[in-house]
Amino acid sequence: MEEVFVQNGGKKDYLLPAYDDDHEGVIAELKEPMDPTNFGSRLRASLFHWKLQGKKGVWIKLPIQLANLVETTVKEGFWYHHAEPDYLMLVNWLPVIDSTIPANATHRVGIGAIIVNDKRELLVVQEKNGRLKGKGIWKIPTGVIDQGEDIFAGAIREVKEETGVDTEFVELLAFRQMHKALFGKSDLLFLCMLRPLSFEIQKQDLEIEAAQWMPLDEYAAQPFTQKHSLYKYINDLCLAKLDGFYTGFTPRPITSYFNDSMSYLYLNKQDLNRRVFSLN
Amino acid sequence: MEEVFVQNGGKKDYLLPAYDDDHEGVIAELKEPMDPTNFGSRLRASLFHWKLQGKKGVWIKLPIQLANLVETTVKEGFWYHHAEPDYLMLVNWLPVIDSTIPANATHRVGIGAIIVNDKRELLVVQEKNGRLKGKGIWKIPTGVIDQGEDIFAGAIREVKEETGVDTEFVELLAFRQMHKALFGKSDLLFLCMLRPLSFEIQKQDLEIEAAQWMPLDEYAAQPFTQKHSLYKYINDLCLAKLDGFYTGFTPRPITSYFNDSMSYLYLNKQDLNRRVFSLN
Repeated sequence: MEEVFVQNGGKKDYLLPAYDDDHEGVIAELKEPMDPTNFGSRLRASLFHWKLQGKKGVWIKLPIQLANLVETTVKEGFWYHHAEPDYLMLVNWLPVIDSTIPANATHRVGIGAIIVNDKRELLVVQEKNGRLKGKGIWKIPTGVIDQGEDIFAGAIREVKEETGVDTEFVELLAFRQMHKALFGKSDLLFLCMLRPLSFEIQKQDLEIEAAQWMPLDEYAAQPFTQKHSLYKYINDLCLAKLDGFYTGFTPRPITSYFNDSMSYLYLNKQDLNRRVFSLN
Repeated sequence: MEEVFVQNGGKKDYLLPAYDDDHEGVIAELKEPMDPTNFGSRLRASLFHWKLQGKKGVWIKLPIQLANLVETTVKEGFWYHHAEPDYLMLVNWLPVIDSTIPANATHRVGIGAIIVNDKRELLVVQEKNGRLKGKGIWKIPTGVIDQGEDIFAGAIREVKEETGVDTEFVELLAFRQMHKALFGKSDLLFLCMLRPLSFEIQKQDLEIEAAQWMPLDEYAAQPFTQKHSLYKYINDLCLAKLDGFYTGFTPRPITSYFNDSMSYLYLNKQDLNRRVFSLN
């Protein structure tokens, strides 16, 4: 992140502080306040320098405090790549050949929690907001995975938040990929079976209108469940799992070449173990 | 999207054109060029009006052509929610109570393609870019799902692009969730088994250094495969599937209450069918 001087048309200009990425590109993370005119001339000098160096993708990261520099960056040919609450990332592609700029995040990830007690009752809720509001439809608790959260952990957290029930993760039974959801992004919904560790319901007021343990037959008999195939599958998967016919995926910890943090591989452990057993 | 006049401190101001969302919020999609001063006064009048109406989340969508309005929007208390190449979405939360603003997309979705021919050779590549560049490591073809693309379709497309080999989708064997990947987002990698329909390799030059059919034993024997558990699991899953011991997930088309487009539910079809069969 060292600042560099460059000879540019007889005039010495500051280049913007920047570092290389793994793909022959360069990343400039702006931090200090700057007026747009000064920033513009430094950005132009830097682009000239990077082009001579053969750089491909150029990334400009502007913290929200530097929103005054967005217009200038766009005028120099950059476009938006992604944004988080506290910064905006812009990108430009210098070569004339095809861009290999990686895509922005494309999917939101949610969970649906299937929880049955020993009376074969399903934990269900009615939601206060959204399109099912006021329709009296009982559905399984669902929620969105937080940034950096594991699927199995998100399922346990959402159930606790919405209903007060403690659970442990059993198995991932299925998942749905849907397109054109919120803001045109796609959506992955992971259907998780959890085992209840407590049974008393304390519903959350902000999002949940009502919560109860409902006999599975009653859940299945709702016209809404019958009409919409996802909700019907939830019932079928639940019955198959309870009756011992079904194996889904369970998480196994793995390490990655690219990343020090622990990851999980979700797979059919029962089948994989069966093979190892039969070969020994 | 009708423009509304409002009495505001004795002076008539234009409110910004906006429409309601499903969550007691309001969305203003700016389209016409505006100078920042005029925009600022209309935005302040609108916020006053929306607050009186009891609106909660306020969304301002600015096309990249209106980058000159970003700074003003931020000064009025908005923060970034997400961005795509051609627009920036900003958001503000008017009530004093907890925000229920939905999260931005959190995951990139990729595929890894496991393809074996009838000589038990695995289709593998060496990559031109990224951290494995120049290391001589053979790995399965991987790639990122396009916006709006189904997982099974993305797997077939990536293999065709990188190696020229035509395939059909067999089964999803496992998936990995990893955090703190590109730009701090999480990453889901779906390991798909595909059946080859053609065998001649025509590698893509932009991203692929080399491609070949490699005996499974040789793939497994690479020190890199031995050392990194994901790559070892790929070998184990592949062998289990080839030897008939393993069942993963296959996609079934479903319809959604929320969305007209076709979605897919990935599940263990063999187990679900087994239950239906045994009950009949």
